[in-house]
Amino acid sequence: MAKQDDIFKNVISHAKEYGYIFPSSEIYDGLSAVYDYAQNGVELKKNIREYWWKSMVQMHENIVGIDAAIFMHPTTWKASGHVDAFNDPLIDNKDSKKRYRADVLIEDYCEKLWQKAQKEIEKAKGRFGDAFNEEEFITTNPRVVEYLSKKKEILERMASGLDSGNLEDVKALIEELGIADPETGSKNWTDVRQFNLMFGTKLGASADTAMDLYLRPETAQGIFVNFLNVQKTGRMKIPFGIAQTGKAFRNEIVARQFIFRMREFEQMEMQFFVKPGEEMTYYEYWKETRLKWHLSLGLGKENYRFHDHEKLAHYANAAADIEFNFPFGFKELEGIHSRTDFDLKAHEQHSGKKLQFFDNETNSSYVPYVVETSVGLDRMFLSVFSKALQEETLEDGSTRTVLKLPSVLAPTKAAVLPLVKKDGLPEVAREIIEELKWDFNVAYDEKDAVGRRYRRQDALGTPFCITVDHQTLEDKTVTIRHRDTMQQDRVSITELRNIINEDVSMRNWLQKMK
Amino acid sequence: MAKQDDIFKNVISHAKEYGYIFPSSEIYDGLSAVYDYAQNGVELKKNIREYWWKSMVQMHENIVGIDAAIFMHPTTWKASGHVDAFNDPLIDNKDSKKRYRADVLIEDYCEKLWQKAQKEIEKAKGRFGDAFNEEEFITTNPRVVEYLSKKKEILERMASGLDSGNLEDVKALIEELGIADPETGSKNWTDVRQFNLMFGTKLGASADTAMDLYLRPETAQGIFVNFLNVQKTGRMKIPFGIAQTGKAFRNEIVARQFIFRMREFEQMEMQFFVKPGEEMTYYEYWKETRLKWHLSLGLGKENYRFHDHEKLAHYANAAADIEFNFPFGFKELEGIHSRTDFDLKAHEQHSGKKLQFFDNETNSSYVPYVVETSVGLDRMFLSVFSKALQEETLEDGSTRTVLKLPSVLAPTKAAVLPLVKKDGLPEVAREIIEELKWDFNVAYDEKDAVGRRYRRQDALGTPFCITVDHQTLEDKTVTIRHRDTMQQDRVSITELRNIINEDVSMRNWLQKMK
Repeated sequence: MAKQDDIFKNVISHAKEYGYIFPSSEIYDGLSAVYDYAQNGVELKKNIREYWWKSMVQMHENIVGIDAAIFMHPTTWKASGHVDAFNDPLIDNKDSKKRYRADVLIEDYCEKLWQKAQKEIEKAKGRFGDAFNEEEFITTNPRVVEYLSKKKEILERMASGLDSGNLEDVKALIEELGIADPETGSKNWTDVRQFNLMFGTKLGASADTAMDLYLRPETAQGIFVNFLNVQKTGRMKIPFGIAQTGKAFRNEIVARQFIFRMREFEQMEMQFFVKPGEEMTYYEYWKETRLKWHLSLGLGKENYRFHDHEKLAHYANAAADIEFNFPFGFKELEGIHSRTDFDLKAHEQHSGKKLQFFDNETNSSYVPYVVETSVGLDRMFLSVFSKALQEETLEDGSTRTVLKLPSVLAPTKAAVLPLVKKDGLPEVAREIIEELKWDFNVAYDEKDAVGRRYRRQDALGTPFCITVDHQTLEDKTVTIRHRDTMQQDRVSITELRNIINEDVSMRNWLQKMK
Repeated sequence: MAKQDDIFKNVISHAKEYGYIFPSSEIYDGLSAVYDYAQNGVELKKNIREYWWKSMVQMHENIVGIDAAIFMHPTTWKASGHVDAFNDPLIDNKDSKKRYRADVLIEDYCEKLWQKAQKEIEKAKGRFGDAFNEEEFITTNPRVVEYLSKKKEILERMASGLDSGNLEDVKALIEELGIADPETGSKNWTDVRQFNLMFGTKLGASADTAMDLYLRPETAQGIFVNFLNVQKTGRMKIPFGIAQTGKAFRNEIVARQFIFRMREFEQMEMQFFVKPGEEMTYYEYWKETRLKWHLSLGLGKENYRFHDHEKLAHYANAAADIEFNFPFGFKELEGIHSRTDFDLKAHEQHSGKKLQFFDNETNSSYVPYVVETSVGLDRMFLSVFSKALQEETLEDGSTRTVLKLPSVLAPTKAAVLPLVKKDGLPEVAREIIEELKWDFNVAYDEKDAVGRRYRRQDALGTPFCITVDHQTLEDKTVTIRHRDTMQQDRVSITELRNIINEDVSMRNWLQKMK
């Protein structure tokens, strides 16, 4: 665990030092669980968004986009269930006055049980070596069995208490387990109560005429309320999809893990409308298609896995996560959900409007079923950034820090470096930039020895360094250095555009998914 | 005026019918002054944003981007002056219980004076014909002089009342002019009072620990608070710029004119940091550069004009608008402001942190001055969309509706149409789409006679229609039809990609500004 923590800390400090992510309002000592994307972060984020958008909208004849406002009519959130059920169970410590999520306290307790079991497994692994059968050990070793069964029992009791609204039993569970305030050790707890996670605001000028609004806690509802308008004006036929990227807001009580769980975050969602009964076909299709998209980035197949939900949300009849191997372990990166007709029917009921598709072939109308793909843009950013950040030991024994971003996503595609700051080399470097800048983000870098500049561009994630030297003046050739291999080739200036384009163009990356 | 109103209504209904803009939450009867971008609107908006971003960030070595969160530390808005001074003067009618902006009531009154003067001018124009000297008439005709001087006097008195906080006199002015509730005619008014336009919300779970937040009313402050982090991690040297696009929110009391003034809107801003004393040079540079950008879209030079501010905001020492000829007249599209060091100094004072640039050459530090360019993305959308929408009378006397969007911004670059729905033509059309879709948004359209399909694509703004006919089966050629000229050329399928790319590529459009 210590190593994981170190890696994660390194990710966070690298993100700040190299202009990817800053804490929000840092001069005012920050705003908890809110971050700003810095000069390189904004480009990486834009490129991820665009790569998703093109692969979903531009590549699919039957998927179109929308961009609904963050503000929506408040009845939207009544219909979706968020007003009544989008809650976190909170508990306060009476002595410390600190507030916690009751479910997180209990889950942290269970995490410790799991760690104890893990320790026993590691010990046994050391004892038995190659002969160790982990599966068998887990089901037969009395200590491990006890830890794991206790964990299971606790989580089931908690889930039952939360689902049924029996919050007294959730509190009783905390007391029975002897869970103490992690900061002070006090066990003097208040009752558990539900707290709605939506941010509220008021539209209009006075208390009597103002309308209570919410900042949307998910982007999906903006698609559902526009379903019929898009279908009719776009002459869409089932099956078809509507894609959207945009901000959503959740008043998380305990937001943690850097940009993994923020109070303000961005989603990339696609709702695919299908004929009832055909949803499982598309559910499987989209699980596969979305995984393929992630794998196309080349961060390593072993870093992704599916997690099928056993317990389904009230609106779903099937759901799976694509989990990614973050610095803090495998966690949800994207969700694929078969949402049935829950949302459209709820909006029909609350609005009194029909939200149905008229099928010309059968001459009848129906409320479509929906298969959703939903990925967090900030989580995508963290997955790419954390896996790309690597420490390498070179042949000469020295180490280098290199940010091996997929070149299609890299903020700057090439840095142009004059070998020395004289003899007209800077001028030639700038001429090259003037040629390349119409197609790519390119940077100029003349400070420090060229070796240090290479290292800096490695750490920034720039796929190519183009070095202008004295030979350039004679034959109009430069060296082009590849970030990942550190290989340098001597090429003509006129070839640069094609070499870079071949490597970074979104067109080529999208075609990998063919 | 009637004609202008008709054009504007036509813009709004075309935007809905062709999938550009829907009222927000329309199934719940809408949310006032909030709109959603539909399947074509989202693409047009994305393309405008990207055209701006590339021209500002990718083209300028000394401009970088950021993407700051909507949530910021609340002290930000104390420092910027928004908590104390971002107000609208409101007045209620006691009989009708309707609420109005006092300044808008007075401005509407003045608008009528201007219309009366305008009528006299028109009448005289008719009488004198070519001999009419408008400038002389305005300064000598007693009626016109009276209307215009009264208008000037009223506006000055209002400005003085609002600036000095003498709201009693603003109310007195309304009563003296006999301004009545526009809906009911009642003159029974309350006092005028100030109302802050920021949307508030609460971060955190309980009344005692929650923090009052605002939804940012402008994106600029996200740049100012990050100034030093960007400068240091990006090793930027003065002069340099930071660009940003993102949502901002204003609780407008009377929001009008479609997407021109919304409660939730998107800004595209760039703050350029310069050495004090050099701000006027860059102010002039950015005025010219930004106008050139607008003109590059080809909507007509006559539709833009500068309006220099006579009355400056508290933070500015020079300011001008680029106004556009909207369907409701010339209005602000973009602002260029010389903001001095007001913001950075205010953040220094409120945060206790230095926000200064260390100048290696002079070995001293200073707070930079700032020149800002700020354009509303939604207004840009409206300017492009409204000017592109045209009714044309064709040679045969029929009319066509055509949306002459700059092709670089058009949502769909080409529609591929099989002449008939048989003989293998749809299959060939789909093969063409499979080839083109890696580079462009392309659509397939097989419904209705081909002439009707051309008209539909004209109304959608699609620059090219590619028609597959029986000859295509023999020689692999198609016709390509140009939206604006309606000219059709017979070309080889293999040429399509280049023909389209030449016309729509952002690279080529950006190069026009060279």
